[in-house]
Amino acid sequence: LGADRETVLICGAGLVGSLLAIYLARMGHDVQLFERHPDPRSHPPPSGRSINLTLCDRGLAALDHVDAGRAAREISVPCKGRMIHAVDGALEFQPYTNRGHALYSIARNDLNRLLLDTAIGRGGVHCHFEKKCVEVDLAAPACTFRDTRTGEISELRARRLFGADGVHSAVRREMQKALRFDFTQKYLDQAYKELHVPPPPGGGWALAHSAIHIWPRGHYMLIGFPNIDRSFTLALHMPYDGHPSYASITSPEALLDLFRTSFPDALPLLPALVEDFFSHPETSMVTVQCSSWTYLDRVALIGDAAHGIVPSYGQGANAGFEDCAVLSTCLQQAGPGDVQGALQQYERQRKPNADAIAALSLEHFIELRELVSDPKFLLRKEIERRIYDLHPDLYMPLYAMVSFSLMPYTEALRRDRMQRGIVDEILAIPEVRDKLGSEEVRAAIAERLQACERGAVC
Amino acid sequence: LGADRETVLICGAGLVGSLLAIYLARMGHDVQLFERHPDPRSHPPPSGRSINLTLCDRGLAALDHVDAGRAAREISVPCKGRMIHAVDGALEFQPYTNRGHALYSIARNDLNRLLLDTAIGRGGVHCHFEKKCVEVDLAAPACTFRDTRTGEISELRARRLFGADGVHSAVRREMQKALRFDFTQKYLDQAYKELHVPPPPGGGWALAHSAIHIWPRGHYMLIGFPNIDRSFTLALHMPYDGHPSYASITSPEALLDLFRTSFPDALPLLPALVEDFFSHPETSMVTVQCSSWTYLDRVALIGDAAHGIVPSYGQGANAGFEDCAVLSTCLQQAGPGDVQGALQQYERQRKPNADAIAALSLEHFIELRELVSDPKFLLRKEIERRIYDLHPDLYMPLYAMVSFSLMPYTEALRRDRMQRGIVDEILAIPEVRDKLGSEEVRAAIAERLQACERGAVC
Repeated sequence: LGADRETVLICGAGLVGSLLAIYLARMGHDVQLFERHPDPRSHPPPSGRSINLTLCDRGLAALDHVDAGRAAREISVPCKGRMIHAVDGALEFQPYTNRGHALYSIARNDLNRLLLDTAIGRGGVHCHFEKKCVEVDLAAPACTFRDTRTGEISELRARRLFGADGVHSAVRREMQKALRFDFTQKYLDQAYKELHVPPPPGGGWALAHSAIHIWPRGHYMLIGFPNIDRSFTLALHMPYDGHPSYASITSPEALLDLFRTSFPDALPLLPALVEDFFSHPETSMVTVQCSSWTYLDRVALIGDAAHGIVPSYGQGANAGFEDCAVLSTCLQQAGPGDVQGALQQYERQRKPNADAIAALSLEHFIELRELVSDPKFLLRKEIERRIYDLHPDLYMPLYAMVSFSLMPYTEALRRDRMQRGIVDEILAIPEVRDKLGSEEVRAAIAERLQACERGAVC
Repeated sequence: LGADRETVLICGAGLVGSLLAIYLARMGHDVQLFERHPDPRSHPPPSGRSINLTLCDRGLAALDHVDAGRAAREISVPCKGRMIHAVDGALEFQPYTNRGHALYSIARNDLNRLLLDTAIGRGGVHCHFEKKCVEVDLAAPACTFRDTRTGEISELRARRLFGADGVHSAVRREMQKALRFDFTQKYLDQAYKELHVPPPPGGGWALAHSAIHIWPRGHYMLIGFPNIDRSFTLALHMPYDGHPSYASITSPEALLDLFRTSFPDALPLLPALVEDFFSHPETSMVTVQCSSWTYLDRVALIGDAAHGIVPSYGQGANAGFEDCAVLSTCLQQAGPGDVQGALQQYERQRKPNADAIAALSLEHFIELRELVSDPKFLLRKEIERRIYDLHPDLYMPLYAMVSFSLMPYTEALRRDRMQRGIVDEILAIPEVRDKLGSEEVRAAIAERLQACERGAVC
């Protein structure tokens, strides 16, 4: 792309497509943004599909880079840790770090509206809604769209095409047909349904608002995100089969039974529980991996279209935003003469990171459901926080590396595997635990890490 | 399906679709068979796309079951082993077994014509060619077709729909969009091109005709199949990149150089080598795995549409034919009242076998290219043949289990893993090798196998 003005077609005006439009318009291009859904600025999302998300450091950095971070923070609720709800109603607050780091809980639709307003307001971006992409010509590149209201067919040919059209990407489907394209999609045997906790009529919040709330119950769980209108969105995660599951909870009575026994403290906060549960769709969770993401100097996939991950780590949008920043840097560094090289460089940088966060997200899903209330897990987390507190130069827990640093996901994964062995040792030897913070233990940790770096077995 | 006459729609009139039509018509159904290519009985295949295949016992058994095996054997060339070509022109014949087992080399197009003639000749099957499936409605079930000559659109609704439409199946693509569908496609970094060895003008064959010919050269190879017209079809397997590769062999001179140094004895047999190589397409090789293959009592995938495998083991058509036989048995056993149960039973039986042959085919690809000329590999094969010869009740080599038995692929894989350890031991101890055939060694082998069956580590 570089300095010469080009017409760029982006399929998908969701979070990643909108942010990419901002990045590319800043580079001087004429951006044509197509979306099959109605304009979210005039149409509320369908009920049960609001889908909260949490922005972390890497997503915010990509927004800040185009001066959109401040506005995003203003419509978010910062959460400094997890509030764990036991069955008996006991609460335990687990801070993410001891350094005040926060995730920013935000409604997907609010963030999407903000990004579209920003893109259009700054100029250079033209949005076309309710245009479903029905055909993709990779070689041109060009897309054919059908207007979902009028049925009218239109075609747009451009200099480049970016597929930001989500986990079921039409652009990717064409690449899957046409090219030697490795592709995997794998579903979890679980899904979630959204439930609404309204703000209390007298003001304030129904639950502590500076936390993500979790009710871990083994193979099912409830998880709650604060919204800026003082409501909460809860997601009930359950398997498709077994008990409890979408197959077993088929009557209001069965649903209320489940909440009375498993989530008694949440029940009074959910006046529309039965209606929400039986009218909202189940949202499935899928991991999508593919290669190659690019076609010559013409087409590239970005965001969920390139790498769909399960939502447990809250990294879907953050990873997609990082894609935008990296792609933009690659294009600027290569200049207009080597766009193909820039696209390849973008994939080379992002694909291993996308694979790493896909694996970490699957791991974290199990951890959230099963381990968050396990005393051994909690002790481990506490020791990790203490080591991080005492020796931040040596050690950063995985969650902090993923959410509160800009370290590549691959590096976070690699460092975590080294660090695990060290925490195992500390956990195994009470005398060491008691001496945490001493020069002696610090030296032992440093030595152990150096040995790992040299390639010794950890 | 069962006793009641139903309209059944089959997408794809390739090998598996045609055979399935024969099976379903025999059960009394009205079979509507749609194919996007022209009728192969009046149109020869495009040059370089003849694609030979080898029928083995399991494919022939599925043909025999509907009285089509004899006619298939009549247009095949039986091959009793592999002829290995060394660079210096030395030949070594490796029989598949010492019991005269043969693979039947046959042109895909000839077999397809035979199956279509059989299906149509016996009645109950209606074929529609040059109809491309452009839309699939799984719930109806129904397909929309576009005539590839006239552009005319037509729709057919049926009681059941079978997707026999190959590795890039349109029916499967709809299931991938609509359902919670696990899917993987993974390409090899190699492809092959077909080359033609004409029959010698004076009669006879250019190469020994009762063998599959292999020129193993590490990461590339040549492999040749006899045709009933006394020609041979050779497939040149090479990587996309590196040397030699499709990227490096870009001139007639480079191609001739490769043949002069690597395949000198094949060169004089290939008068159209340069023309064939530069005009024929590269055929990529892909493994496709997915689940679920079925949708309610309405839709099922079969053959490559359900399980694409790389061609090295020659099992693609054979596995697809076995699918037809198993599906037919499941439908007959369940009866018209439980078609959904029958389809599920078909998938339960076939999916693990499809996964097993996918893994074995990838393994065998490496073996063919790299190991066939390795002396240790050859010694191993010889010992396996001897044990099989001496103790056929105890031991059957993997190749024989896959190609010359009707044992499920999963069972072949399981038994092979047990047997490997035993051959390792025999290879390691020369005294045992020398006593092969003695009661003592027989007892030791039997005991070892029993220990494996009991779950001991092999």
